[in-house]
Amino acid sequence: MNPASALEQQIRFIIEIDRLKTVLRQNYLVDGSRRENTAEHSWHVALMAMVLSEHAAAPVNSAHVLELLLVHDLVEIDAGDTFAYDNAGSETKAAREQAAADRIFGLLPGTQASHLRALWDEYEASDSPEARFALSLDRLMPMIHNALSEGRAWQANGVVADKVRQRAESIARGAPALGVLANEFIDSSVAAGFLADPESPS
Amino acid sequence: MNPASALEQQIRFIIEIDRLKTVLRQNYLVDGSRRENTAEHSWHVALMAMVLSEHAAAPVNSAHVLELLLVHDLVEIDAGDTFAYDNAGSETKAAREQAAADRIFGLLPGTQASHLRALWDEYEASDSPEARFALSLDRLMPMIHNALSEGRAWQANGVVADKVRQRAESIARGAPALGVLANEFIDSSVAAGFLADPESPS
Repeated sequence: MNPASALEQQIRFIIEIDRLKTVLRQNYLVDGSRRENTAEHSWHVALMAMVLSEHAAAPVNSAHVLELLLVHDLVEIDAGDTFAYDNAGSETKAAREQAAADRIFGLLPGTQASHLRALWDEYEASDSPEARFALSLDRLMPMIHNALSEGRAWQANGVVADKVRQRAESIARGAPALGVLANEFIDSSVAAGFLADPESPS
Repeated sequence: MNPASALEQQIRFIIEIDRLKTVLRQNYLVDGSRRENTAEHSWHVALMAMVLSEHAAAPVNSAHVLELLLVHDLVEIDAGDTFAYDNAGSETKAAREQAAADRIFGLLPGTQASHLRALWDEYEASDSPEARFALSLDRLMPMIHNALSEGRAWQANGVVADKVRQRAESIARGAPALGVLANEFIDSSVAAGFLADPESPS
């Protein structure tokens, strides 16, 4: 493969991934003005990783965490955003996302396609300290957004506190201090009436 | 400073920078559906750096390029996006952005504030191979967007080919092959009528 055609493939990939800016997540921006898209979320969680890396459960290679987070949601260009608490969508999510990964990473020159695909596979398998830390951040972020936007995405989707607390467990696995913080956001959201807690004794 | 209060500062910073998602650039998305915001642009150009690092003029530390690009436009939260070809805005840009950097990076704990501020200063000064490569990508990206969205941002702002060609020179400085590519995008945009070229002999 000559350099020119590799560059053409790379530019086609860069143009194609512009579409991630049109994939909407359930979360609202902190100011509540609109729903968040997956591209801007990916930037936010990557910069979050730069700032919070000292809180990782195990020492992490920060650059590797950034690479994982920059590609972690690319498959949503084809597969869409599957809301965390959407049980029906979650059943078909893996197959949809594998097909998307084949197509999207396959736009790149061979070696690079394999490298980026391996990053995505690693994130999905959550089998390295970096991937576990990246997952913690990805799960913490919507809790912050919901707590600050009066729980709009939780309420619109009928999400209750127990389900959110289950997700906080994986935050603690990758970053113990952030697991504590997640539970504080959950508790304060329940107290403020932003998050329903039907199991509560009160 | 105890760890809890450092974490509180970090979370306040992470919440504050959500506002970058509401800063609009002049460029349109590739599909022409709407203008791009600075947060999603920052993600796009960082992933672009992962893909194109082999084209840097000098060997670069890829992780460092990512860090530069993730923070490079944070000051726009306060200072807004100054369009590249806005001469009046460019005169006051430096002062507005310095004040913004003081406030925004100052939200972080001391050492971290200094680290992120140093990244931004390095990007602005363009005095390292990483900063020059990052600048090349940041300048190439809007040419791609304009070429694919029929030059809407150029036309809306009365931008002519000579001005765009001047900016392509700094692309070549950080990444020669991308400088060649930029000129191809400019030439094809002129040929298609997306970019005015009043100096052309034709």
